[in-house]
Amino acid sequence: MMQDIEANWSPVEQKTAREAFEKAYQREISALLEQVRATTNEMAELDELWTLHDFLSAKRHEIDGKYDYNYQVLLFVFANLIKDGWLHLEELQNLEQEKLAKIAALTRM
Amino acid sequence: MMQDIEANWSPVEQKTAREAFEKAYQREISALLEQVRATTNEMAELDELWTLHDFLSAKRHEIDGKYDYNYQVLLFVFANLIKDGWLHLEELQNLEQEKLAKIAALTRM
Repeated sequence: MMQDIEANWSPVEQKTAREAFEKAYQREISALLEQVRATTNEMAELDELWTLHDFLSAKRHEIDGKYDYNYQVLLFVFANLIKDGWLHLEELQNLEQEKLAKIAALTRM
Repeated sequence: MMQDIEANWSPVEQKTAREAFEKAYQREISALLEQVRATTNEMAELDELWTLHDFLSAKRHEIDGKYDYNYQVLLFVFANLIKDGWLHLEELQNLEQEKLAKIAALTRM
């Protein structure tokens, strides 16, 4: 089953997908680290630290789930990464038209 | 029961205890905020952020428990604050000798 799905991705597509995935991940992580840095530099109260702690709890859960590389859900993941601004559809241009169309449709949902 | 215990603390002692408690709290919180700031400013990897998150989870639990102002356990709490460097025994000098002796004994345990 899993092999069937992976077989739908040519070697070029797999490489493109991997690279785009990694790029989006690096961008989101960099932005997150920067955001945490900016937040802590302005922190004066313990309550603000616990707010940051709550934020990190949610973020950790979200990121762990989102960056689970899995061909079964990859089009959906890419659409979300595009919607959130971590990836551009053009960076996936080496994918076949059908996949690109699906991703584009998902970003409009 | 609780009233009996509180009655063992004269008004001067209650004032001293409150102030010392607040002082220790402010010192520990300032140091914690500074530590978090220093950590985030050097962070380059997501793993380090999650390590910080784990640290904050433990710290939050510890601080919530430690700074629960309660006359029943106050001598014990003061001893721990002194051991951890957030308070000096001299800052409690307005307490009666018996309490000071108990605190001093507890810090040596």
